[in-house]
Amino acid sequence: MGDKVLEEKIARHHESLSEALGSGTRAQVRQLINNLSAAEIGDLLESLPPAKRIAVWELVDTELDGEVLVEVNDEVRQGLIRGTDDDELAAAVGDLDIDDLADILDDLPDTVIREVLSSMTRQDRERLHQVLAFPEDSAGGLMDPNVLTVRRDVSLEVVLRYLRARGELPDLLDVLFVVSRDGRYLGDIRLSDLLTQDPDRLVSELMQPSPAVLPVDMPAAQVATEFEHHDLVSAPVIDAGGLLVGRITIDDVVDVIREEAEHSVLTMAGLDEEDDMFAPVVNSARRRWIWLGVNLVTALLAALVLSWFEPTLEQIVATAVMFPIVMSMGGIAGTQTLTLMIRGMATGQVNASNMAFMFRKEIAVGILNGLVFSVLIGLIAWLWYRDVELGFVMAFAILLNLFAGAISGVLIPIALKRMSIDPALAGGVALTTVTDVVGILSFVGLATYMIIGT
Amino acid sequence: MGDKVLEEKIARHHESLSEALGSGTRAQVRQLINNLSAAEIGDLLESLPPAKRIAVWELVDTELDGEVLVEVNDEVRQGLIRGTDDDELAAAVGDLDIDDLADILDDLPDTVIREVLSSMTRQDRERLHQVLAFPEDSAGGLMDPNVLTVRRDVSLEVVLRYLRARGELPDLLDVLFVVSRDGRYLGDIRLSDLLTQDPDRLVSELMQPSPAVLPVDMPAAQVATEFEHHDLVSAPVIDAGGLLVGRITIDDVVDVIREEAEHSVLTMAGLDEEDDMFAPVVNSARRRWIWLGVNLVTALLAALVLSWFEPTLEQIVATAVMFPIVMSMGGIAGTQTLTLMIRGMATGQVNASNMAFMFRKEIAVGILNGLVFSVLIGLIAWLWYRDVELGFVMAFAILLNLFAGAISGVLIPIALKRMSIDPALAGGVALTTVTDVVGILSFVGLATYMIIGT
Repeated sequence: MGDKVLEEKIARHHESLSEALGSGTRAQVRQLINNLSAAEIGDLLESLPPAKRIAVWELVDTELDGEVLVEVNDEVRQGLIRGTDDDELAAAVGDLDIDDLADILDDLPDTVIREVLSSMTRQDRERLHQVLAFPEDSAGGLMDPNVLTVRRDVSLEVVLRYLRARGELPDLLDVLFVVSRDGRYLGDIRLSDLLTQDPDRLVSELMQPSPAVLPVDMPAAQVATEFEHHDLVSAPVIDAGGLLVGRITIDDVVDVIREEAEHSVLTMAGLDEEDDMFAPVVNSARRRWIWLGVNLVTALLAALVLSWFEPTLEQIVATAVMFPIVMSMGGIAGTQTLTLMIRGMATGQVNASNMAFMFRKEIAVGILNGLVFSVLIGLIAWLWYRDVELGFVMAFAILLNLFAGAISGVLIPIALKRMSIDPALAGGVALTTVTDVVGILSFVGLATYMIIGT
Repeated sequence: MGDKVLEEKIARHHESLSEALGSGTRAQVRQLINNLSAAEIGDLLESLPPAKRIAVWELVDTELDGEVLVEVNDEVRQGLIRGTDDDELAAAVGDLDIDDLADILDDLPDTVIREVLSSMTRQDRERLHQVLAFPEDSAGGLMDPNVLTVRRDVSLEVVLRYLRARGELPDLLDVLFVVSRDGRYLGDIRLSDLLTQDPDRLVSELMQPSPAVLPVDMPAAQVATEFEHHDLVSAPVIDAGGLLVGRITIDDVVDVIREEAEHSVLTMAGLDEEDDMFAPVVNSARRRWIWLGVNLVTALLAALVLSWFEPTLEQIVATAVMFPIVMSMGGIAGTQTLTLMIRGMATGQVNASNMAFMFRKEIAVGILNGLVFSVLIGLIAWLWYRDVELGFVMAFAILLNLFAGAISGVLIPIALKRMSIDPALAGGVALTTVTDVVGILSFVGLATYMIIGT
């Protein structure tokens, strides 16, 4: 497995660091750390327990400090900022790109913010305000407002001279944006065209519209999809009036995709990707209370339903032994449908146009598997307790609960989305509540009816 | 939420397509579809029920067919290939890049493979064999063996003339690779340096080693991490002898990251990202049997443990009503630890160097939350059944099971990894088996002991 090699590599980093930290050759550790990229240092810091984390952080070169702060998650960043002098902080974040500065500005102490703002040019300050005006997870929040532009009516020769005079070019620059005199976005001119085309040709002859011109309020998830669909390195961001306001590059989009992925996995367990893995025990414990509490309520609900049937549970002890099977099979089958739905809705592949088909298909799968497993589990119950009736009741309850799981697996995420609740967060709890209750009602309820009947 | 806008956008695609398909203006639909990128068409096809899918596929331009086949998942691709003539297929895949062709070669009929191979140049055929020699999820499987290279002892002027003579440059080209006479990788020369530096300077003066030189057998997950850590657009791939064998570009890396993310979410529910969401009901149902079967076995195990305590369940019916609460709370708490561990191990952030700290911390969180919820749930049980002893038994069982959940949450993924089993696949089932059994033993077991005691 790929993860193994990766893990070993990072483990080696850690081990040599641990050794170096242990043997006390600070110079060695410092060199080791500052050979890493900011993202690597960020990863490393996140995976160190608090005491070691601060020790390593203090060894990071000041010119890397700012970028490292951008890379770590919210809680780790706040910890590092608390452990750093204001002057050092101001120096560290002063050189950041506007979009990166905007991401971490909230976490900085007020004095540092004031110092940084006052040392910026007026233009940069305006650009910062522009980025801050948009949510972090929108095109406006992701964009770098500092953009290289050219005019359409000049020759490539002129552009080439301009670039040579400029010297250093921004990272991840694959195209220059062509704008009108009043700043409206007109198209892209590719660096490779600058290299291969006749320098006498005009920009206007070679410029092409970007395959994805991003409105400033486009959500980050959609920005990521545009980059994926068109294999982009960079894309222009425009405001409602068509004015070019910034540029988004693939490195930030990759971070969006990775965070989305982390978010969807952690959310399903009621966790948050911005939390520090090594936060103090009390903080970590308290954070999990809500999730445990919500699940306690659903468990109590199931217990309440069970308690209606206490006479049955006493008279036919087999029902007390068997009902968890009915509950769990419905939950498992329903979770499969739910997972497909949540993923499909997130990617947009499940939507209004195919929802009906999806619903029919999942119901059909639920009934088919309900039949298969009801026969199997019915037989097991019959043979276990030598009781044909129990077998039939069990079979019926399994069929009903797998059917309920399929229906809930489709309908619950739709309903949650309507209510603007994240289906990945609440879907699992809601679904198992349904399958627990239906499982108990169908199995213990029917068993009760049979007792009364006889 | 961002997903909403995205979903609406794709839904609009679908709706205009559905309308167009319905009203029968094929020309309109054809135009609508062929304005999309291959990735967009792929997404669209995956989200269409089978009958519509084939209808839309037939309208896709032949020159896009090959790329669309690369974009869709395995099962959808196999369906599209079955619905296409051999001649058309050969024409469609003939123009693909070597790395893309390698990805789908297995799915093509033998006659088409023979036709495609015979129409390739000998060099391309050799390159294809080279790519096929590596697993799809390794650097070798991801790379494009077709690479632009320059020598170190020439001037930029010479390089510029070479590029101009070549005309069209490959997509996503940010650097040229510098190689020795015998093909060894020496470094990168950036396109932006070609644009801004004095043309009389030599390549050797400006070339820099890539921040990530990828061995051909590096796993895809680690390739993705290298790209993320160094914000790369492209990176060189070398063999064991240091020879340059190919180039990996960010677009393929983004696909790796996205697939990894899908895989981890779907795997936890026993699903596979290469399955067609709209496969025939019987196929979909059968695929889920293994997962339902595995979970049935664990449910039967819990039932078996319960059956040892039948006398207790009969005598104190409250235990039958309450034990699911103990089971579920342990499972929920354990799943939180498990999720953190699986995610940390996948990113490499949890590893040998901090495992012990993580273990101690999760145990401490488990005990602390165990105490909090044991008091709460103990009180509930006491008040519900007006039985102090039951309250105490319940409290003790909750404490023990949250403790068991924390231990299992850390140890199970480590153990599974040792056995080369994917923790995301088997971790949840293994954990809930432990917390189910511990929950029953601690609660019903202790209740039994108390009855005997009295």
